[in-house]
Amino acid sequence: MEGDPLSALFTPAFVVDVDKAKRNAQRMIERCQKLGVQLRPHMKTHKTLECADIMTGGSQRCIVVSTLAEACFYADHGYDDILYAYSVPFDKVERCAALSERLDLFQILLDHPDALEQLRKRPLKDAIAKTEGVELTGVYAHCGNTYYCTGVEQIQAVAQETTKLTLQFMEKLKAVGITCKSSIGSTPTCSHPVKDMAQLSEVHPGNYVFYDVQQSTIGSCCLEDVAVRVLTRVIGHCPHRNQLLIDCGWAGISLDGAGKLPTGYAVIEGHPNLKLLSMTQEHGRVEPISGQLDYSKYPLGSLLTLIPYHSCATAVMHPVYHVHSEGRLVGKWTPTRGW
Amino acid sequence: MEGDPLSALFTPAFVVDVDKAKRNAQRMIERCQKLGVQLRPHMKTHKTLECADIMTGGSQRCIVVSTLAEACFYADHGYDDILYAYSVPFDKVERCAALSERLDLFQILLDHPDALEQLRKRPLKDAIAKTEGVELTGVYAHCGNTYYCTGVEQIQAVAQETTKLTLQFMEKLKAVGITCKSSIGSTPTCSHPVKDMAQLSEVHPGNYVFYDVQQSTIGSCCLEDVAVRVLTRVIGHCPHRNQLLIDCGWAGISLDGAGKLPTGYAVIEGHPNLKLLSMTQEHGRVEPISGQLDYSKYPLGSLLTLIPYHSCATAVMHPVYHVHSEGRLVGKWTPTRGW
Repeated sequence: MEGDPLSALFTPAFVVDVDKAKRNAQRMIERCQKLGVQLRPHMKTHKTLECADIMTGGSQRCIVVSTLAEACFYADHGYDDILYAYSVPFDKVERCAALSERLDLFQILLDHPDALEQLRKRPLKDAIAKTEGVELTGVYAHCGNTYYCTGVEQIQAVAQETTKLTLQFMEKLKAVGITCKSSIGSTPTCSHPVKDMAQLSEVHPGNYVFYDVQQSTIGSCCLEDVAVRVLTRVIGHCPHRNQLLIDCGWAGISLDGAGKLPTGYAVIEGHPNLKLLSMTQEHGRVEPISGQLDYSKYPLGSLLTLIPYHSCATAVMHPVYHVHSEGRLVGKWTPTRGW
Repeated sequence: MEGDPLSALFTPAFVVDVDKAKRNAQRMIERCQKLGVQLRPHMKTHKTLECADIMTGGSQRCIVVSTLAEACFYADHGYDDILYAYSVPFDKVERCAALSERLDLFQILLDHPDALEQLRKRPLKDAIAKTEGVELTGVYAHCGNTYYCTGVEQIQAVAQETTKLTLQFMEKLKAVGITCKSSIGSTPTCSHPVKDMAQLSEVHPGNYVFYDVQQSTIGSCCLEDVAVRVLTRVIGHCPHRNQLLIDCGWAGISLDGAGKLPTGYAVIEGHPNLKLLSMTQEHGRVEPISGQLDYSKYPLGSLLTLIPYHSCATAVMHPVYHVHSEGRLVGKWTPTRGW
């Protein structure tokens, strides 16, 4: 299939514009270099080796993951310095310890004294166990409130506030003799960083490599920066309801974004008057925002292109991503799944 | 892990009570036998070989699928008489033809003259192609409006109306010299069939093997009949928000059911006062419907059991299902995915 146009794909199909993904990744690398802060990209949006390679600039070091399955997947493929950004799950302490012993650097999160007890019972590294028990490496925060922002000004206000609070906390730690790293992150703040973020040790955004309609609405990116689409085909005309049926249901794009967009569950590229109104497992219902559908524009079998509201949620529905450069297929990426 | 209790599983985990699934399947088989109508079970809820075997009573014949990937998966594993219940997708005619040539019986749906044109260009069986082109096998309807019902009376009213309309249509076909099969279905109507359904050739329900909270709300089943759960663990206490954090987000249970239940995105078994309020990819926020949380009842690491609102949507999020009998693990089922 390499070299074929996108229209050769069976639908629904999740497609990645590799040039846009590389450009998004390169811009984030440059932004962090300019700011003087370490970039630790998050893998949860895509969960593939190929995209991890792009985001780490080929270093295969210094990543964040959201599941232990991701941590093991990347460790199995030569990645190291992995931060498992999850309050240590008590059922997985043994698996964390095993992974820790295989890697040079494996970090987990703690947010409760009971979790410290779990780690004292089964420390992640023998060397540490014999000396001090558990070592605090840093402080990790995710400014998820940026997802309620609209525009750069609001994003940067959150970035400033989060940075200030984090740095104040670091000062308090220092005052009691604790020196450690600080890491904050979210795609909106790291897409529009403020100067003070230079005083942090790390940032850990993830979604930016794909971006999505949500990020463009927040103001993290332009719609043109979004690197992913779901291709779908018209499979039915329903003139009695003034609707089209498409072959993408919630199994192909997810239910994320309900009620958020005037265009429904996605943006239908090049058709601003169309709305993805509702879905069943394998069908989508599309209707015009206003007026009557001109069915001659949408013959059965014709392609439509959906820009996902939330690329993390859409990607997770697909067992394979079809990768293209300028509309020609160049390969497939296979994500890891599960926990 | 066989023989282990459910608490040995890493969470989130999708678990199937095989005894309940078998009982649900057996009841449907008996209901159809009693009615004298052929059961053609739908595979889209589970997409596994093991559950297909249970639903077909071991015959491995006469099934419905929602994707061509499912059709190929079942064909590859010895299944035959497969109905691909989807308006023939123009991009997949060649794959349909190839499958048709491998199987004794492969049926597709047509709902537009353009689709007939596509099939005349590439008929599914040479034998037919050489004689008549395309053969009408039957009429297929899904009474999806049963999903708006509450209680057996309403379900049976829809079943009666759908059956009547279908049989009237069959009469009209007969009047112009066309004799063919008729198939209707939906889990609610087939869980509470009306006598006239005996005059149909087939029924094609699917969800009934698992059932879910939605089906219990409609009245298709009792909550006790639901064969699937998502196991999750408490991973955080948030007393400032009167909330618990659990390790199941939308990646583990799906976003289906938003706004439908007083208990949020699921029913939390044994805790009727708890609500799964909102989710991120890997976190769920749980709060009491009324009053203050007693955190001593929900220590970090403790298990909670979610009954899914829509088992089709939840199952699709999991690359493996953990199967148990009376709380002891007996195996794993691996579903097929994609299109």
